[in-house]
Amino acid sequence: MSVLFDRIALIGIGLIGSSLAHDIRRLGLTKEIVVATRSADTLKRAEELGLGDRYTTSSADAVRDADLIIVSVPVGASESVAKEIAGSLKPGAIVTDVGSTKASVIAQMQPHMPDTVHFIPGHPLAGTEKSGPDAGFPGLFEGRWCIFTPVAGTAETALKRLRGFWEALGSKVDEMDAEHHDKVLAIVSHLPHIIAYNIVGTADDLETVTESEVIKYSASGFRDFTRLAASDPTMWRDVCLHNRDAILEMLARFSEDLAYLQRAIRWGEGDKIFELFTRTRAIRRSIVQAGQDVDAPDFGRPHALDKK
Amino acid sequence: MSVLFDRIALIGIGLIGSSLAHDIRRLGLTKEIVVATRSADTLKRAEELGLGDRYTTSSADAVRDADLIIVSVPVGASESVAKEIAGSLKPGAIVTDVGSTKASVIAQMQPHMPDTVHFIPGHPLAGTEKSGPDAGFPGLFEGRWCIFTPVAGTAETALKRLRGFWEALGSKVDEMDAEHHDKVLAIVSHLPHIIAYNIVGTADDLETVTESEVIKYSASGFRDFTRLAASDPTMWRDVCLHNRDAILEMLARFSEDLAYLQRAIRWGEGDKIFELFTRTRAIRRSIVQAGQDVDAPDFGRPHALDKK
Repeated sequence: MSVLFDRIALIGIGLIGSSLAHDIRRLGLTKEIVVATRSADTLKRAEELGLGDRYTTSSADAVRDADLIIVSVPVGASESVAKEIAGSLKPGAIVTDVGSTKASVIAQMQPHMPDTVHFIPGHPLAGTEKSGPDAGFPGLFEGRWCIFTPVAGTAETALKRLRGFWEALGSKVDEMDAEHHDKVLAIVSHLPHIIAYNIVGTADDLETVTESEVIKYSASGFRDFTRLAASDPTMWRDVCLHNRDAILEMLARFSEDLAYLQRAIRWGEGDKIFELFTRTRAIRRSIVQAGQDVDAPDFGRPHALDKK
Repeated sequence: MSVLFDRIALIGIGLIGSSLAHDIRRLGLTKEIVVATRSADTLKRAEELGLGDRYTTSSADAVRDADLIIVSVPVGASESVAKEIAGSLKPGAIVTDVGSTKASVIAQMQPHMPDTVHFIPGHPLAGTEKSGPDAGFPGLFEGRWCIFTPVAGTAETALKRLRGFWEALGSKVDEMDAEHHDKVLAIVSHLPHIIAYNIVGTADDLETVTESEVIKYSASGFRDFTRLAASDPTMWRDVCLHNRDAILEMLARFSEDLAYLQRAIRWGEGDKIFELFTRTRAIRRSIVQAGQDVDAPDFGRPHALDKK
């Protein structure tokens, strides 16, 4: 693979930032990776892991002379990063981000971006429930989608360059407007996380069922939810606060549907229940066919005999 | 392993029944496995798979001279099976089941059981989202819990024999009363499935987000729910209808908690959101420590580079 950007600055070095570092290095996409994070401890860990060529706690320092800047911080920190780096950006540089909400990130960052740079909001739909610089790994983005939500007037050449970068990581790139992105993500990502956090909280609060019972018997369904509910609390708090309207809309629909199902359970309407439970199977099949999940039973979790 | 029962009758040969067949054979726990199911097609498939030694569409025939009878049918079919087999049971036989709800199964089966047999309701907490005789595999029960909910007056010797059977499959056995079982399972299993079915239904019904978008971008959280929502619709309809009160109680608590979280999102109360999202992480850790889930990120799903 050839060098696509002479110098890349990674602002934030959590799961996404560190996975980017692994891939950029592995694929030789740059001559120099500069890693910046506000926490001295995290920066030290990133250095121990050898994720960059240079390390700094100053975002402003990091972006100086960088050709591509990737901001990978909780979305609530977007504005402060934008303010910090604005005065140090090299003309012609591309500034992008990986935030899970896009209208809010645009509102926070765009006003601070000088006209001399290309600001392209982006969102790679990839991750795990782990967080921090140790959580990153090469190949995280391969086969996954990355969504750009370009603002009006974005130069085609810059879009093409950034698209080439994500494609080099193995991603497929889509473009849509920020409002639509935020609605799509509210249902495919934000609502599932919120529901997972919520049900785990409900289970934790029961008086009649002990926590140890919940844990012992979790393989019967519950454990699936605990994975999403183990995701980074800061990141997800910020998502809730910064995609509020779309999330509230999806929550309202979810609750409405749940009330319908609950009523069917109360009144013993087996046909209504059966209809829903049948319809949802088809969606699973489509997801597996689209290569977005494994077909192996139980997500391919190892069963006892596999280990022997 | 030694023969524990001379003849075992499996009534129902879906995921659980067929997994039992694999293990009973593999471990040599009986001299003869008799497979019974009402559907001639399913029976034929079971025979093609070599799951038993004898095959019949008559449960009454199957249980004749059997020392252990395991009923693995949707819980709504429990009473009709009990009626069918009642007159053919051998004195001293143990009759057990694997149903996900226990008070209802006891109410359906116990009145029909002759005094000469030992009826011991049971529930192995194991499974995948697949169903039918092809879905079974050896080792499904290893390391998982099996819960007995014995009725008053059950002979200790019979309990001990059945416990030995499940332990031979690698399961750990617990005992509790049926009402408590139904409450525990409502939170660890029934609610997660219902919520998963519901959210997949909500996503399917949106007008502003297309189904193809939901599928393409599902790796960002949604796909986790589609696994549970791909479970057998008949089985889960019956669970809803036969554990109604405990499920409605858990649904009410879940909805109450969700309303609280929704309000916190609406009013931007980041501290409340953060508190919940932090608390739930600890539960995940406990589940992994208890050996009830893998610690590998993303359930150990293969990532793109693993395949190369």
